[in-house]
Amino acid sequence: MRTTVKDVAKAVGLSTTTVSLVLNNKPNRIPEATRKLVLKAAKELNYRPNHIAVSMVTKKTHTIGLILPDISNLYFSELAKVIEEQCHKYGYNVLYGNTNGTLEHEFEYLNLFVDRSVDAVIMTVSSNYSETDVKRLYEIGETNNVPIMMVDRTLDDPRFMSVLLDQKLGGFLATSYLINLGHKKIACITGPKNLRISIERLEGYKSALGDAGLPFDRSLVIEGDFSVDSGSRALPYILGQNATAVFSLNDMMAIGVYRECRRYHLSIPQDLSIVGFDDIFIDEFLEPPLSTIAQPVQEIGKYAVKKMMSVLEGKKNPCTDAGDTKIFKPALKVRGSALKFTEKKQI
Amino acid sequence: MRTTVKDVAKAVGLSTTTVSLVLNNKPNRIPEATRKLVLKAAKELNYRPNHIAVSMVTKKTHTIGLILPDISNLYFSELAKVIEEQCHKYGYNVLYGNTNGTLEHEFEYLNLFVDRSVDAVIMTVSSNYSETDVKRLYEIGETNNVPIMMVDRTLDDPRFMSVLLDQKLGGFLATSYLINLGHKKIACITGPKNLRISIERLEGYKSALGDAGLPFDRSLVIEGDFSVDSGSRALPYILGQNATAVFSLNDMMAIGVYRECRRYHLSIPQDLSIVGFDDIFIDEFLEPPLSTIAQPVQEIGKYAVKKMMSVLEGKKNPCTDAGDTKIFKPALKVRGSALKFTEKKQI
Repeated sequence: MRTTVKDVAKAVGLSTTTVSLVLNNKPNRIPEATRKLVLKAAKELNYRPNHIAVSMVTKKTHTIGLILPDISNLYFSELAKVIEEQCHKYGYNVLYGNTNGTLEHEFEYLNLFVDRSVDAVIMTVSSNYSETDVKRLYEIGETNNVPIMMVDRTLDDPRFMSVLLDQKLGGFLATSYLINLGHKKIACITGPKNLRISIERLEGYKSALGDAGLPFDRSLVIEGDFSVDSGSRALPYILGQNATAVFSLNDMMAIGVYRECRRYHLSIPQDLSIVGFDDIFIDEFLEPPLSTIAQPVQEIGKYAVKKMMSVLEGKKNPCTDAGDTKIFKPALKVRGSALKFTEKKQI
Repeated sequence: MRTTVKDVAKAVGLSTTTVSLVLNNKPNRIPEATRKLVLKAAKELNYRPNHIAVSMVTKKTHTIGLILPDISNLYFSELAKVIEEQCHKYGYNVLYGNTNGTLEHEFEYLNLFVDRSVDAVIMTVSSNYSETDVKRLYEIGETNNVPIMMVDRTLDDPRFMSVLLDQKLGGFLATSYLINLGHKKIACITGPKNLRISIERLEGYKSALGDAGLPFDRSLVIEGDFSVDSGSRALPYILGQNATAVFSLNDMMAIGVYRECRRYHLSIPQDLSIVGFDDIFIDEFLEPPLSTIAQPVQEIGKYAVKKMMSVLEGKKNPCTDAGDTKIFKPALKVRGSALKFTEKKQI
């Protein structure tokens, strides 16, 4: 059986009121010696405050729920690590939920977190929300007084706090780089096509083509799902379109292209140039090292947690009043996966 | 405010008893039309069963707590993914806690999970437990009737269920491979030295040396902490010992050695042979691809969840009766990071 206040009281021969006052750290006139005696007994008996009772009084559990699409995607495991380190600094623990990119799992974890009384939720939406879904999400936060923050990906609703990246700029930088190397047939492997970050990164791609006077050719765009495997699956199609370069909307899919190129005995960058997106730590160890769009993941994670803490410490209605958006800027990191286009090297 | 059974009852104009029977899915004589009406209203009002009330009746929350040392270590993010996929198949959600390898965080998450009424805990211990710590861990499980399973790393206590790898065999296979290539000065980068898996993998290393009639030289062993950075930090020392080959007790540290070798303008495997441990997905994309000891992570994760489910469905006292150990076998995967030793190539 779990140790109760009563057990502790019995062990030290004091009233439950006295023991309860000590264990709940209430200001009172209990002598220091008594206090120490109670705390020592509580420790020995492995007394743990009843989470439900404590929450009812303090309304705080010092826990943040973090909902991510895919923990095996290095970008998210890096983001999760930063968010967790920062939360620990503020004395908060983090519970993770991994959704595998389905709306159903997102709501499952959200409800689970709310039921387990997390103080706040930080999430990366990974699916396409209908208006009803957005309403439902918002209501869960509001009803339970749990602030919800969007990181990396957001919904078209200004009521949610969001910490984001200028995705379009990232797409523009990657594509412009390949254009400047002389490539004209640049394929693009997207994420799930209705997902906002896919749309925005693709807009950057289109915009760079437009600026360079190159036509947008829909047949050069192929949909992936941000996984390594979907990158591999895209390669044969890309080769069929005679593309000489690829902009992969994340690094995990670029790794898939690397893998498939090996099977086809193609060399990167001699046979195919490629630029990714995310700057995961493994990029520099690939052969050749992957050029990519770097997200300032440390800054994003730090800002998100700092912002959330200021909301939790404030007295606002976190869902209705706290909605605002911070947008970070990406940067191109040139490594060794793209080469100047020459007719000879066209495949 | 959260929607209650009372709110739903009011909305449909029925008694709370009737509504409660429907929402709790109790066998009863309520007409199907009424049932549908109640469920529709509950959905519209976003009614969610009170988790505490439900738990008090069913004693089940269908949630597993998963405690891991480092979610940014690819081995653990892969293991987490398998465990989660398997749990979902059984209708369970997984809450993660990431401990950064500290005992304090392990107990913090364990208590957090128990307070939030998880049905079971699966954990990878990442620190050195004293006898008191083991006792404390065991008591938390027993007091709260929460089965605790050790995966990948365990404690010297037969009362915990464990799903493990034959770590010593892994160390033996890696080292024998390097010995068979003719290397005599084989360095070993360990994990935290008191951690059981470090000790066991190192025992395999010693045993392979012994079998080959090579002396065990303590100066060839250097302690890391399983992180990429600790692998990088180990390289200068290893070079100072004139080692021609390295057995790194995990792949993340081997990646650190790769990185540092680049800074020293050394080539793997021409200047230094290396074998890792874990077989994380990135190994094949490194240059050269990393030879390693493969853990059957899919099988380990599947077995762990299946076993836990059988415990949860059974009527045993999960902590005292369920303790048993399953040990999986590792295998050597030869890729391209080790070369036959020749005098000329010695550094």
